[in-house]
Amino acid sequence: MNTSPTAQLAAFAAGLRFDDIPTPVIRKTEDLLVDWFGSAIAGKGSRPVETLTKFAASMGPSDGAAEVLIDRSRSSAYFAAMANAAASHVAEQDDVHNGSVFHPATVVFPAALAMAQTLGSSGQQLLTAAVAGYEVGIRVGEFLGRSHYKVFHTTGTAGTLAAAAAAGSLLGLNAAQMQHAFGSAGTQSAGLWEFLRTAADSKQLHTAHAAAAGLMSACLARDGFTGAAQILEGPQGMAAGMSSDADPAKLTDGLGTRWATVETSFKYHASCRHTHPAADALLQVMQVNQLTPADLERVVTHVHQGAIDVLGPVVNPATVHQSKFSMGTVLGLVARFGHAGLVEFDQHFQDDLTVALRDKVVMELDAEVDAAYPRRWIGKVTVTTTDGRTLQGRVDEPKGDPGNTLSRDEITAKAHRLAAFSGGASEAEMARAIKALWAIAQSPRIGPLLAGAA
Amino acid sequence: MNTSPTAQLAAFAAGLRFDDIPTPVIRKTEDLLVDWFGSAIAGKGSRPVETLTKFAASMGPSDGAAEVLIDRSRSSAYFAAMANAAASHVAEQDDVHNGSVFHPATVVFPAALAMAQTLGSSGQQLLTAAVAGYEVGIRVGEFLGRSHYKVFHTTGTAGTLAAAAAAGSLLGLNAAQMQHAFGSAGTQSAGLWEFLRTAADSKQLHTAHAAAAGLMSACLARDGFTGAAQILEGPQGMAAGMSSDADPAKLTDGLGTRWATVETSFKYHASCRHTHPAADALLQVMQVNQLTPADLERVVTHVHQGAIDVLGPVVNPATVHQSKFSMGTVLGLVARFGHAGLVEFDQHFQDDLTVALRDKVVMELDAEVDAAYPRRWIGKVTVTTTDGRTLQGRVDEPKGDPGNTLSRDEITAKAHRLAAFSGGASEAEMARAIKALWAIAQSPRIGPLLAGAA
Repeated sequence: MNTSPTAQLAAFAAGLRFDDIPTPVIRKTEDLLVDWFGSAIAGKGSRPVETLTKFAASMGPSDGAAEVLIDRSRSSAYFAAMANAAASHVAEQDDVHNGSVFHPATVVFPAALAMAQTLGSSGQQLLTAAVAGYEVGIRVGEFLGRSHYKVFHTTGTAGTLAAAAAAGSLLGLNAAQMQHAFGSAGTQSAGLWEFLRTAADSKQLHTAHAAAAGLMSACLARDGFTGAAQILEGPQGMAAGMSSDADPAKLTDGLGTRWATVETSFKYHASCRHTHPAADALLQVMQVNQLTPADLERVVTHVHQGAIDVLGPVVNPATVHQSKFSMGTVLGLVARFGHAGLVEFDQHFQDDLTVALRDKVVMELDAEVDAAYPRRWIGKVTVTTTDGRTLQGRVDEPKGDPGNTLSRDEITAKAHRLAAFSGGASEAEMARAIKALWAIAQSPRIGPLLAGAA
Repeated sequence: MNTSPTAQLAAFAAGLRFDDIPTPVIRKTEDLLVDWFGSAIAGKGSRPVETLTKFAASMGPSDGAAEVLIDRSRSSAYFAAMANAAASHVAEQDDVHNGSVFHPATVVFPAALAMAQTLGSSGQQLLTAAVAGYEVGIRVGEFLGRSHYKVFHTTGTAGTLAAAAAAGSLLGLNAAQMQHAFGSAGTQSAGLWEFLRTAADSKQLHTAHAAAAGLMSACLARDGFTGAAQILEGPQGMAAGMSSDADPAKLTDGLGTRWATVETSFKYHASCRHTHPAADALLQVMQVNQLTPADLERVVTHVHQGAIDVLGPVVNPATVHQSKFSMGTVLGLVARFGHAGLVEFDQHFQDDLTVALRDKVVMELDAEVDAAYPRRWIGKVTVTTTDGRTLQGRVDEPKGDPGNTLSRDEITAKAHRLAAFSGGASEAEMARAIKALWAIAQSPRIGPLLAGAA
């Protein structure tokens, strides 16, 4: 039992110490933390996020050590994790790990921050917990495979284990306790893509659920509550129920030597990541050939099957959020504005010009792109111009990927833009909080990020 | 969209009124309520239940209108539903619906009671909500089918929708809101059988999660939070992800004419329901032939595949709870004591004599029993005696099934036994509470069931 893949992964998460983590991994984790903070603040004012936060306030205590970022209220760790996780995913600007198609930040940091604030953990403990959460969640996502992602929102499912690993690290769970926490987290693992078909609010519920259920699982394990020993690869475990191509070897791939955390990509466009490679490829072909939107007659995006599965149902997006899952809308905005940010979606997703461009875009399955996915997200487009030319665009790493990453200045600027968009914090508040976050490895005790800033 | 099976089921749950429900269905629902109350009180002192309740207390408010039954504390509806649902399933004495292999009471009543106490609903509203929860949960379980149950604990998965229907009924959700509540509940649907392999505590987590997540989904829908329109039968919904033999016609089977609530069985033995038909068949053959345990050389139980799937992994049970999933242990206790109740499991599951009998019992797949399952749970055993006889035992309806049901006196006595076992309430407290529950249809406002009883 103790050498099963689940047991090895749990032992790794439980045993991870700050001094074991290479410095570049720590620096990247700080980047991811600041990037996440901006996304969390960006959730303010979003109807589904506010509704979930109202629910948490109505069912939780009226005070506590953990901070609800969008309204600066305090609650128990459980509800703060729930509310902050709901907030972090709605702008579609939070990070993503390509190989697992998993968004780590939105489930890992809400659980880690809430638990760290509750326990009075140090910054180094918080960073260590975040790395544990990223390494576990990414491997679980890779393990569950492409068949899983066709129906399940991996961030919701693998997210419960990622959040459990992060919270469990801060609670100081031993290897056996961490394995029990994984069992409890995995058996609460949930999240279906069906909501996309009617543009429903479930994506925020999935992250809220994953962060809260994962944190709960870690707390229960500390108190002796047991879970399945092999919730991931067991014959009636997650893979048995929710995947047809799961590979247990992925669970332990390079533990302690391969740092999956640094493979995580930042999102540049405010849309579903599946649209980014094609968007960057279209930008490239338009810049190289000096095209304007009026030059576009037809745009064929050559994509992997996962893009068709997730984006295919979205033909005529009815809401801003749904439009972020419309390949045509994203490319229409990129063609018009050179990027597809929160403001562009919010104000222009239904413009006549955007809609006209949207309807010129089609997706076609591409063998090379599909074979490279999910490890590499290649962008390929074929543009037919109104004057009859056929032009090819291609990017091998979309902006924000590890080989084409964002600088700390770009990350800081992005967080400021997100806060300005939502009104969740003033520029001065953001500057103060971000400065503290860049120095978090020196913090002896994590307090509120926006303390006294109301 | 409005004529989809999910939409029809949601409209039924939202539109159900007390006066629409035939009187025998109401009376049966009162039976189920009293039977559930005994099971909830029986959870007191159980380590996993106490641990979950401690978690709820640590993360929830210190007061509220909803009652946590095992410790008479008060909390918000969310945490009371979570704690009471954890408590109701641990004694394995709560009710079951055969056709869906779904335990309705443990998820429906905790959500309904917590919401009714919070809203100050009437007894008639509570009973109506319970019927809505039973009718929905049972149909969802039937819809998900046998393939689902091989890996998933249907009470955890279908339970989220059952709890949402009950809570949503009390909240007065309209049909569209109820459909959104179903979407949010279904996308949080979870629960894997893997925990049985190591006798872990997850069963209590599954019911706690289902009741809390379902109640949450109803509250969110009231506040405008949307869910998938076809979370059950949609191409990326529950069936797509978690079943290979789902039948959407089951979702709307006889809505308003067939009352699935009255098909629910009470549990007589304190073990997994899959053991009951064989236990009753063994009792029958022993009584008819006046056998003693010493006469038993070998007992072949002729069972359905689901029994083998769930009970097969349990060869040498290490805990009281696991022993309730051991066909051999259950039959050993029945042979020794004439029944397998909480006391028998607690004090005798590891006796030498029980273990010796356990090892004489085998399961064999039986074509007739398997074909009748899950609508009918036939019990068939072949006993070889030490003096060389081969004897057959058979029951067509195990004790507690609708055709072989418990009287109100038997239900009351069972609840008293459960409370006496756990020490969760005194005999006088139970008598007072049960008397009030039998008269609940006349209650203008649901208050605490154990008020002033501490």
